[in-house]
Amino acid sequence: MEIKEFYDYMKEISKIQNAAALVAWDMRTKIPSKGARDRADVMGKLSRMTFEMETSSKMAEFVEYFNRSKVKDSLNEIDKRNVYLATKQYRRGKAIPPEKFEKFMIACARGETVWQEAKAESNFQKFKPVLEEIIGYLKDFTDMFSYEENRYDALLDEFEPSTTTKDIQKVIDGLKKDLIPFIKKLSNTKRPDDTALKGKFDRSLQERLSLEALKVMNYDFKAGRLDETEHPFTIGIGPGDVRVTTKYDPSDLRPSLFGTMHEGGHALYEQGISEKYFRMPIGTGASMGIHESQSRTWENMIGRSKAFWKFFYQKLTDIFPQYGKISVEDFYKAINVVEPSLVRIEADEVTYNLHIIIRFEIEEALINDRVKVSDLPDIWNAKMREYFGIEPSNDAEGVLQDVHWAGGQLGYFPSYMLGNLYAAQFFATAQKEIPDLEEQISSGDLKPFRKWQKEKIHRYGALYDPKDLIVKVTGEPLTHKYFMDYITKKFSEIYEF
Amino acid sequence: MEIKEFYDYMKEISKIQNAAALVAWDMRTKIPSKGARDRADVMGKLSRMTFEMETSSKMAEFVEYFNRSKVKDSLNEIDKRNVYLATKQYRRGKAIPPEKFEKFMIACARGETVWQEAKAESNFQKFKPVLEEIIGYLKDFTDMFSYEENRYDALLDEFEPSTTTKDIQKVIDGLKKDLIPFIKKLSNTKRPDDTALKGKFDRSLQERLSLEALKVMNYDFKAGRLDETEHPFTIGIGPGDVRVTTKYDPSDLRPSLFGTMHEGGHALYEQGISEKYFRMPIGTGASMGIHESQSRTWENMIGRSKAFWKFFYQKLTDIFPQYGKISVEDFYKAINVVEPSLVRIEADEVTYNLHIIIRFEIEEALINDRVKVSDLPDIWNAKMREYFGIEPSNDAEGVLQDVHWAGGQLGYFPSYMLGNLYAAQFFATAQKEIPDLEEQISSGDLKPFRKWQKEKIHRYGALYDPKDLIVKVTGEPLTHKYFMDYITKKFSEIYEF
Repeated sequence: MEIKEFYDYMKEISKIQNAAALVAWDMRTKIPSKGARDRADVMGKLSRMTFEMETSSKMAEFVEYFNRSKVKDSLNEIDKRNVYLATKQYRRGKAIPPEKFEKFMIACARGETVWQEAKAESNFQKFKPVLEEIIGYLKDFTDMFSYEENRYDALLDEFEPSTTTKDIQKVIDGLKKDLIPFIKKLSNTKRPDDTALKGKFDRSLQERLSLEALKVMNYDFKAGRLDETEHPFTIGIGPGDVRVTTKYDPSDLRPSLFGTMHEGGHALYEQGISEKYFRMPIGTGASMGIHESQSRTWENMIGRSKAFWKFFYQKLTDIFPQYGKISVEDFYKAINVVEPSLVRIEADEVTYNLHIIIRFEIEEALINDRVKVSDLPDIWNAKMREYFGIEPSNDAEGVLQDVHWAGGQLGYFPSYMLGNLYAAQFFATAQKEIPDLEEQISSGDLKPFRKWQKEKIHRYGALYDPKDLIVKVTGEPLTHKYFMDYITKKFSEIYEF
Repeated sequence: MEIKEFYDYMKEISKIQNAAALVAWDMRTKIPSKGARDRADVMGKLSRMTFEMETSSKMAEFVEYFNRSKVKDSLNEIDKRNVYLATKQYRRGKAIPPEKFEKFMIACARGETVWQEAKAESNFQKFKPVLEEIIGYLKDFTDMFSYEENRYDALLDEFEPSTTTKDIQKVIDGLKKDLIPFIKKLSNTKRPDDTALKGKFDRSLQERLSLEALKVMNYDFKAGRLDETEHPFTIGIGPGDVRVTTKYDPSDLRPSLFGTMHEGGHALYEQGISEKYFRMPIGTGASMGIHESQSRTWENMIGRSKAFWKFFYQKLTDIFPQYGKISVEDFYKAINVVEPSLVRIEADEVTYNLHIIIRFEIEEALINDRVKVSDLPDIWNAKMREYFGIEPSNDAEGVLQDVHWAGGQLGYFPSYMLGNLYAAQFFATAQKEIPDLEEQISSGDLKPFRKWQKEKIHRYGALYDPKDLIVKVTGEPLTHKYFMDYITKKFSEIYEF
């Protein structure tokens, strides 16, 4: 059997995935309301076809043949990795009986509906039964997937391959020790005033600003576009087409501007993957965490940096002249207010990881039967008190705030935190390797940094596991140290202590 | 075997077709330039999957079973028609060996590229070889499809089922006799002045006007949307989603306004099909010609009528105040200038059919070996002289003007003419059945007419062949008489004779 035959087959899967990605993009940006219901069936059909091809008897042949040690040894690095990823996908797909997986999907669909109602009513009891059902399925699945040490590893593997519960626990232990006292210190210091940031911001002007930011980032508009949506996302629809979306808040331009830079960071990653990997299993990001590191880099480490605003403030005031009255220094401080808050998606870059730590600890205990679903509200509130010193007044702004559990996505949250940590560690290396990086950013020349990201990270796609990629790029395994260094330096200066 | 099994299978085909329609829409409206090449592969994949399902062994079983006379007799009208259409599709699909069809598709793809170059250079010789190849395939196909009298019938059948060469010839004979002298008469009369229609028209204001027109037409925006494109089209992407596109000419608002009304007419048809027919073979238009009749009705019979402008002129001048200086009467005349011209797509509603007659006569002679490809330029120019009294100065504005032949679409052109004739015949019936139709249009109330169209034509989808539908709605078979009555009355008044 020739490896070309395997690649041709993978290409066919990729084409169906492209169609599915376009349907997904359209459902969240352009579809008229009456078209939505039946389009979900189209989405289901395309997913099913992909799944069938990924687990077909033809795929079984590929898996069997190309994993024979003699055959495998003759493959080059890229072929080997593609076979590895396809094999993994095949085994995950085969591990769960289709009928069982379908029941799980139905439970998740119901879960999301019930969660929406439960959140609106701030009524955890309503959500409890379906969440128990979902957790039940997930426990079964972890057994079917198999894992070495911790059931949670099997969940993590989908989002952060090669990263174990133990790895994350180790990072968290260090982070908690440094981060919690630092946040306490910030909380006891006078916070910058950000009232000047509120106002009225025309939608089309916000769009101009978002486009300006993407231009500065060297986002390739010939290989993508920007559209409006309710819950912003980035999506690679196919070779040469990676689309960004954003949302315009009429009274605050921060969500659209930093949201666009966040999504733009994801998009640069996808646009930067080597063209040779198009339509191959490795033609995607290395993991959710690595992906998130690229978005966080642009949103926070660049987008909320002093250097960036040295040149970008002029572009902002050109579009929104009302900012002419505020000094760039005050503006910079205002976009960097730190405040322990109840809701993850509104959290600043300092406190964000704490939100994730709470979720990780709960998920890991839940899947290992150390806590029960019915205990969740109490545990949640206790952890909020312990880590943040605040407590939600109801479950809607507490344990019910995120959709992930309702959708069966346990194991996803850690990627957000890992992203923040990867980002800081990558960025520290970039600073070392590009000595005048800060001057370049201050002058608006982000090409060298974008080139660095592409060469060191993006072009490889999923050729390496995140665990290996971080060592390859930075010379050492993931540590929380770079993140702490970064926020300590930045916020000590902003908060003047 | 239960009929439900057949319908379930048809639903699966329909879902893939929906995905393909979305890909097609996106490729012509939103796709970034670098994404286009690989997206064509996705389109190819989805088409191939549809074709495979339509000609599968499963489909063979359905065709065999539901066409058994005992089984067929037990089906209701709708089931019978759905089986008929699926059977027809199956047989057409099976008639041609897949490898042969693929070669034809490749020839057509090359044909379109070569045609573009040949047209740019006005060089028919360059186009000749590939056109000969395409015609060769089509001749073979007509033998494989089988036909009763005329090879051309087999081509017509794809676009205008149940309509034969003889049917069209009969209509054309009558039409030519009446139309050619009428055009001569118009040509010898002073034409209205339309210079006042030219100017500068802001893109976003033109969009507002197009949206206004669609609103007046009762187009359902919750089940569709309007976007910009290079070559306007309408597309049904799925249940509850029928999208319109238009093009904005900065120096002339007629193309976008009348283009939008034309496409809106197609869209009303698709939006008006009974919801019970969703995802069934009959859940589409009855034919290309009937579809075109709906677009022509809105573009010409309403959009270029005096009654329509009695109320719509105010909306136009609200958006484009420069029209305040022209009287509505002069405006009405200016949008109804008749002029024999070289190019079909720029033709007015009076001369349009002559362009089609030329193409029909050439196609029919070509497929039946009465003329050769190499003769086409001479024949074309001779017919232009005979029917229009003018002659192209080069092949680019003559025989090379349309893409259809390059794309292998012989048999398509007659639908445009049939659409004009169906439109006039339907409209005459509507005038009889809605006595105050003209007053309603003058007051901007187009709901009753839209309701009439939906009840009499749209809701049936493809339940009837066009030949039967026209009798069902108007009480008689297609005739050119209503079209001639309509243009004679309208243009005698405008041209004052």
